[in-house]
Amino acid sequence: MPFTPTDYRPYDFANRRHIGPSPAEMAEMLKVVGAESLDQLVDQTVPKGIRQDDPLDFGPALSEADLLKFMRGVAKKNQVFTSLIGQGYADTITPPAIKRNILENPAWYTAYTPYQPEISQGRLEALLNYQTMVSDLTGLEIANASLLDESTAAAEAMTMAQRVAKSKAAAFFVDEGCHPQNIDVIRTRAEPLGIEVIVGKPEDLDPEAVFGAIFQYPGTHGEVTDFTAQMEALHAAKAVGIVVADIMALCLLKEPGAMGADIAVGSTQRFGVPLGYGGPHAAYMACRDAYKRSMPGRIVGVSIDARGNRAYRLALQTREQHIRREKATSNVCTAQALLAVMASMYAVFHGPDGLKGIAQRIHRKAVRLARGFEEAGFEVGPEAFFDTIHVEVGALQSAVLKSARDEGLNLRAVGETKVGIALDECTRPATIEAVWRAFGIERTDETEPYEYRIPDALARESSYLTHEIFHMNRAETEMTRYMRRLADRDLALDRAMIPLGSCTMKLNAAVEMEPISWPEFSALHPFAPKSQAAGYHQLFDDLSKKLCDITGYAAFSMQPNSGAQGEYAGLLTIRRYHAARGEAHRNICLIPTSAHGTNPASAQMAGWKVVPVKSRDNGDIDLGDFLEKAQKHSENLAACMITYPSTHGVFEETVREVCKITHDNGGQVYIDGANMNAMVGLARPGDLGGDVSHLNLHKTFCIPHGGGGPGMGPIGVGAHLACHLPGHVSEGTSGAVSAAPYGSPSILPISWAYCLLMGGEGLTQATRVAILNANYIAARLKGAYEVLYKGPTGRVAHECILDTRPFEKSAGVTVDDVAKRLVDCGFHAPTMSFPIPGTLMVEPTESETKAELDRFCDAMLAIRAEVTDIEEGRMGPDASPLKFAPHTVEDLVAADWDRAYGREQGCFPPGAFRVDKYWPPVNRVDNAWGDRNLTCTCPPMSEYSEAAE
Amino acid sequence: MPFTPTDYRPYDFANRRHIGPSPAEMAEMLKVVGAESLDQLVDQTVPKGIRQDDPLDFGPALSEADLLKFMRGVAKKNQVFTSLIGQGYADTITPPAIKRNILENPAWYTAYTPYQPEISQGRLEALLNYQTMVSDLTGLEIANASLLDESTAAAEAMTMAQRVAKSKAAAFFVDEGCHPQNIDVIRTRAEPLGIEVIVGKPEDLDPEAVFGAIFQYPGTHGEVTDFTAQMEALHAAKAVGIVVADIMALCLLKEPGAMGADIAVGSTQRFGVPLGYGGPHAAYMACRDAYKRSMPGRIVGVSIDARGNRAYRLALQTREQHIRREKATSNVCTAQALLAVMASMYAVFHGPDGLKGIAQRIHRKAVRLARGFEEAGFEVGPEAFFDTIHVEVGALQSAVLKSARDEGLNLRAVGETKVGIALDECTRPATIEAVWRAFGIERTDETEPYEYRIPDALARESSYLTHEIFHMNRAETEMTRYMRRLADRDLALDRAMIPLGSCTMKLNAAVEMEPISWPEFSALHPFAPKSQAAGYHQLFDDLSKKLCDITGYAAFSMQPNSGAQGEYAGLLTIRRYHAARGEAHRNICLIPTSAHGTNPASAQMAGWKVVPVKSRDNGDIDLGDFLEKAQKHSENLAACMITYPSTHGVFEETVREVCKITHDNGGQVYIDGANMNAMVGLARPGDLGGDVSHLNLHKTFCIPHGGGGPGMGPIGVGAHLACHLPGHVSEGTSGAVSAAPYGSPSILPISWAYCLLMGGEGLTQATRVAILNANYIAARLKGAYEVLYKGPTGRVAHECILDTRPFEKSAGVTVDDVAKRLVDCGFHAPTMSFPIPGTLMVEPTESETKAELDRFCDAMLAIRAEVTDIEEGRMGPDASPLKFAPHTVEDLVAADWDRAYGREQGCFPPGAFRVDKYWPPVNRVDNAWGDRNLTCTCPPMSEYSEAAE
Repeated sequence: MPFTPTDYRPYDFANRRHIGPSPAEMAEMLKVVGAESLDQLVDQTVPKGIRQDDPLDFGPALSEADLLKFMRGVAKKNQVFTSLIGQGYADTITPPAIKRNILENPAWYTAYTPYQPEISQGRLEALLNYQTMVSDLTGLEIANASLLDESTAAAEAMTMAQRVAKSKAAAFFVDEGCHPQNIDVIRTRAEPLGIEVIVGKPEDLDPEAVFGAIFQYPGTHGEVTDFTAQMEALHAAKAVGIVVADIMALCLLKEPGAMGADIAVGSTQRFGVPLGYGGPHAAYMACRDAYKRSMPGRIVGVSIDARGNRAYRLALQTREQHIRREKATSNVCTAQALLAVMASMYAVFHGPDGLKGIAQRIHRKAVRLARGFEEAGFEVGPEAFFDTIHVEVGALQSAVLKSARDEGLNLRAVGETKVGIALDECTRPATIEAVWRAFGIERTDETEPYEYRIPDALARESSYLTHEIFHMNRAETEMTRYMRRLADRDLALDRAMIPLGSCTMKLNAAVEMEPISWPEFSALHPFAPKSQAAGYHQLFDDLSKKLCDITGYAAFSMQPNSGAQGEYAGLLTIRRYHAARGEAHRNICLIPTSAHGTNPASAQMAGWKVVPVKSRDNGDIDLGDFLEKAQKHSENLAACMITYPSTHGVFEETVREVCKITHDNGGQVYIDGANMNAMVGLARPGDLGGDVSHLNLHKTFCIPHGGGGPGMGPIGVGAHLACHLPGHVSEGTSGAVSAAPYGSPSILPISWAYCLLMGGEGLTQATRVAILNANYIAARLKGAYEVLYKGPTGRVAHECILDTRPFEKSAGVTVDDVAKRLVDCGFHAPTMSFPIPGTLMVEPTESETKAELDRFCDAMLAIRAEVTDIEEGRMGPDASPLKFAPHTVEDLVAADWDRAYGREQGCFPPGAFRVDKYWPPVNRVDNAWGDRNLTCTCPPMSEYSEAAE
Repeated sequence: MPFTPTDYRPYDFANRRHIGPSPAEMAEMLKVVGAESLDQLVDQTVPKGIRQDDPLDFGPALSEADLLKFMRGVAKKNQVFTSLIGQGYADTITPPAIKRNILENPAWYTAYTPYQPEISQGRLEALLNYQTMVSDLTGLEIANASLLDESTAAAEAMTMAQRVAKSKAAAFFVDEGCHPQNIDVIRTRAEPLGIEVIVGKPEDLDPEAVFGAIFQYPGTHGEVTDFTAQMEALHAAKAVGIVVADIMALCLLKEPGAMGADIAVGSTQRFGVPLGYGGPHAAYMACRDAYKRSMPGRIVGVSIDARGNRAYRLALQTREQHIRREKATSNVCTAQALLAVMASMYAVFHGPDGLKGIAQRIHRKAVRLARGFEEAGFEVGPEAFFDTIHVEVGALQSAVLKSARDEGLNLRAVGETKVGIALDECTRPATIEAVWRAFGIERTDETEPYEYRIPDALARESSYLTHEIFHMNRAETEMTRYMRRLADRDLALDRAMIPLGSCTMKLNAAVEMEPISWPEFSALHPFAPKSQAAGYHQLFDDLSKKLCDITGYAAFSMQPNSGAQGEYAGLLTIRRYHAARGEAHRNICLIPTSAHGTNPASAQMAGWKVVPVKSRDNGDIDLGDFLEKAQKHSENLAACMITYPSTHGVFEETVREVCKITHDNGGQVYIDGANMNAMVGLARPGDLGGDVSHLNLHKTFCIPHGGGGPGMGPIGVGAHLACHLPGHVSEGTSGAVSAAPYGSPSILPISWAYCLLMGGEGLTQATRVAILNANYIAARLKGAYEVLYKGPTGRVAHECILDTRPFEKSAGVTVDDVAKRLVDCGFHAPTMSFPIPGTLMVEPTESETKAELDRFCDAMLAIRAEVTDIEEGRMGPDASPLKFAPHTVEDLVAADWDRAYGREQGCFPPGAFRVDKYWPPVNRVDNAWGDRNLTCTCPPMSEYSEAAE
């Protein structure tokens, strides 16, 4: 019988492509771990009591080819109209070179947040360019490296204003010309914080009554207004002035800084980032220098490395939520790094002349459009505008909107009798003519003599983007090489494991990424009629259903566009639930001390008081303390927030009891989904007693980290909470937490594809192998490192915490030294000092192969040996390669090598590839120097070359 | 007036994106060159007498966004049916990870042919994997790194058989079971060479009558036959046996080597390379070890570098056409490197178990399909098959074919009464059911017990792909990193200028590349009905028209899929023209001695005698010698072949006279289009007197080089030759030179996009700037290097030849030393020793910016200074960094640095980037060692690690 059929399933995505270890490797690993089978290991790790009853079942898993075919069918159900709706979203042209070399390049999209600056110099430079661009265009001294979306940025600006304002007024003024979603998100944010929101006309502002005020520029219906007077009045009242500004308009219009604004926020979407039915896009925030320490979000700054060479890193990290905890006023954690990089490259690609040319073209088109209406006898407003006008049509509003749709156009209903039209970079003469036709005007669009509808006083006078980077030769050859050079400076998942505890850096498969580039997913306006987005809604519905199956919840909201945003949205849902039951007074939130810093920060934002609960020595929640505090606060208990498995990487057996105690005392249970990668298919938070959870789709469900964003943090809730989920003004409801009703829809195909490719069985197997991989590392490093916080059977869950604290005493070696030395070995460091200072938390995920795990373990063991060399006196504590790590080519090329170890040991420790060695572009970065000498925009090129020479 | 409109045109692809130097840079460069304006420089460079009368005018150029919109419209005119036609082409699944990380990754597709091994180790490894795969699957000792397509590979096999056979018979036997296009291309090739082609049934082979025979396996209608008896008979007659084998079938079937075949050829298309309406795909050739020196094409081999570490390089280069010239019997020059890399990665991705699984699935589906027909009472053949069957339908053939088209299926007409069906990797149960429905059978496809229709004797017994590389863990994480590591070892256009004379390495813009990934271009079968390819035919027609405008010819054929293939096809066209006029005896071809080696090789293949014509000292054609030889051979003059501007990079003023002399003596003029980048918009070969030219679309028209292919070499001809262009059996005509009627259509959107984006004005400006860039280099290097072969006004055309010959005498420095030292500076070497041994030919193209040209010039000047150091005794000739180049990290890390120069000088000469330095993975490669110790398949992994340690 020569033809014995092979049992190899070549199209089995789950086991052949996504899951790293092969069956043969798993057998070897189980031996090392000391388990007889994967079943046995999982039984030892995940307590029987929490296991789910039925296996996950989504029907047969799709092959990659079938997935793409299916996705194409879904995509076709979305109709790509020309959307001239505006309202904060404009169509844009993504330069194909940027699309291909950044958005579709794993070197960019699989990178992690640049916490380790030595391996992140490329994206740090791109983000510094972004900050420089924002700072220049807004005319404000300092900008951060992006926020989630314009609406949340506006809400962040409000709370920041409250922090920095000397005025003690309790109200906040909102220009009624703000986009409706901005007003709504501000209201949502204000309510739990007790801030009164006053919406009105700018001229009606009472500066004494408010701590701050926010204005939209241009206004949502197109009006261009100078807010200089308002700013002066606010300042006189010691209040803070904020402008939400259209980044493209700022290329022509007087900048917020010139009006005296203290803070500016807005979206950079129209700088080359696809609409994506609402996101992801990068929002910006800029402010006066004096406020920089109060600004939320990440800021990239310039510093030096150990050789004194220029180096970038995240600045002012002490501002970040992770140390603020109970006192936090923002939970911002995720940025929109990948999209900010794209927007910054768009600016580099076009330069100031190009951007000005684009803005002028848009404005001229809007002028031609308006003139066509005027000459046809229509009443057009506003008088001064940039790209958006509205036309009076009386009772014919809906007829005109329909007629426009027949032309393939989406316009905006303004009031009851007007139709709004916003033009953009993509508008062609044929578009303008189609708009006219929708109004019954037959007219040819002709380029006419220039005429501007912007008052002279509002014309921009200052120059912008004067830095050399925006004046480089923008030939594609040069741009492509620039993007490649930056990419090469960074170490991302496409080169090595990124073993970040609780961050779940797993495979972002090419097949999952492919659909997001298709116009049917990328080119829809978030406020396009639902009928044009049938494909998207099929996706939302089916993905929600699958996530319900996975979590045991009854309903999901896709709106939160980061994990922390999910926490916040989840707590607001609980808050509304209590209020609806007449228990609005409940305001105590129990949070274990081991929780991630976003937990208390989110609870603060929900208007609650955080009551910390002790952890036991083994890392588990101290059940006694929990019970005591729950009972003590029984009257006012709103919720508890727990993470499962715990941030210590252990499946606590007491979880059901924690939930019961909370419920018994009137609270609701929030289970943080950060560690969901240890649970999918094995246990469901909804079954354990959870009422709400967010899922980090960018962790467990394969959305790439993008170098620090985008993320997606949808929330699942029990049936009793479903009616309290966030609404959205575009759907006639309120309580939104994000600018767009479905968060960042254009990246949801990634998570959906993952579920469809894996099937229930594949997802479950992924969880099981994630547990195996973590236990394999724990077993291999046993003896060299103490593994903290194991479960009762000696197993860890999907991650393990390695204790490096003893080295400080025994050898003067810090956790930082170990992390930097891992760079020499070709690895991104594990999560440092969370949840326990001085430790490393390692989460290998199921996607890493045995070979890669072994490479990592070899590196860790070699590092341990270098510690031993110090402990045993063979190496001086300051002479060790651990102290000089990471090593660069500069170290090698220097004429003198006066180290106590050889070049070979320094540069090629175990783990490091030989031919394919990753060389960090800088030596160890001096964080303190950078904070002392804060620079958060691009330094002059001359300084670069000095640093380089 | 605050709003002065900017004159910056942000969407001007030609001047802002494609052309490197900015207007300001051009002004500076003109000063260095000593010209008042670009017009003046061009007037000085391109003789008035040859300039074209009217400017190129294609109407307004498209922006990138408009181009994509237009292309999407064209793409939609192609209909993607499920093609079960077979005939050498099968649908396949390109793993998305391979598509994204290779086909769509500039690091792979912008690389040049790996002539410089030190900067090509990545693709050399991938190609070695390819050779190993082919060698294993065919069961033959040695394989090359791909040929153009299966049909040309079959024709190459025939001529190779003639070279190696001891039999002196003049005929060649062709199995009538060969695919029609293979038979046709063999006939085309045989005719000028005087080989008689006998087509017949394998059992009718008369071995004594032939020097060789070729058999298709499986046959074109599916039959699986053992050719062992034929091979034995051929060997007994000292003739050579060739098998054209389906690479997928070989995963199940007895391999050609086991039958005793001497040579095997075939296509690797169905290993993950999209159909593309015919190409590009990689064909393979494998043979017995004894014949390796007679094998055409490139072979990758294993050698060592200067440190004794393992290194890959092209082996046996002395076999290549460029040294054979007049004695050449093959003009093969281009490989299908990018496609061979994809196919090899497909094999790595699936491994032998996966490939076997896929092949078994295909076969089982074919069996189920056949059984369905049989059980419905149809007569099905053949008895033994792999994936292709045919069904007897009597007079209903066209009705069934139409009924199939209604089901979205393309089937094949076999004879007058049969319908052929070939299944593939993509066939789904629904496909099989649709096929049945087309025949009136309502039946559900169910997985049934395995049943094979392959005789036991034909089952494969030997194992294959046993090398470790095919057994690596194939998780996508690991595969992605493997592809990234290989890419990083290579230096391609995405990192640095590749200044290759006559190879025109210009920008391959992302926007030009994007459409080739769309299914509407990539998924069409070459023999699908023309009505389904309306978009493609619009492309062929319009691109042909534009190329006619550019060249001054009357008609174009897209069939030749490389430059050399274009030459050959052009000469055959002339040959047919002479024959049609009763002058078939004309067989003399005049070729200047400076011609590219493919010219005489192609003339040989056209059955002509090459008569070399002298060059003058200034590189021009010796007109006296030309006239003398033309007149001497006037009776038999078939053609002359010239290159314009000349291979010396000069616009010879005598070109019209050369053409006139040729015509006066009855010959036709072939003008090689290799240097067309110096002419587009300025001069037209058709106007100068040319009758035929080929254009290298992969040079002048932006198809990327793909690391050594694909190429496209369409030919333009005067009106009198149009009716003699190659035909194709699929269109009922003959004389094909390629397997597919339009060569490699799926890459033609690139060239078309380039023309549409540039417009006539942009294309002309590109030519002018290409001339400026070359003259700028010549001016900057003046004094340091002698620039050979300038025109009468002291200008070079679009390239310049730098004389490094004097250094050998003055300093013992060879052209090789200079080339390798350029690697240290971060550059690919210019073309070496062509057209003059010991020189470097530099063609910067219009796409390089002034900054990059300066970086190159700085590097060249620093190298010159290092030569001077030797000349003036400051450095010993063997101690110079020129001799140790290129420098690697291994040099730096070595404990002892006993060089006469510092590490800094060695590794960071002018030009080299500091942080972004490209480090070659190996030191200088020892070519001779590799040829002495020839290994052309992957060595065991153990040897890798030895070499690495």
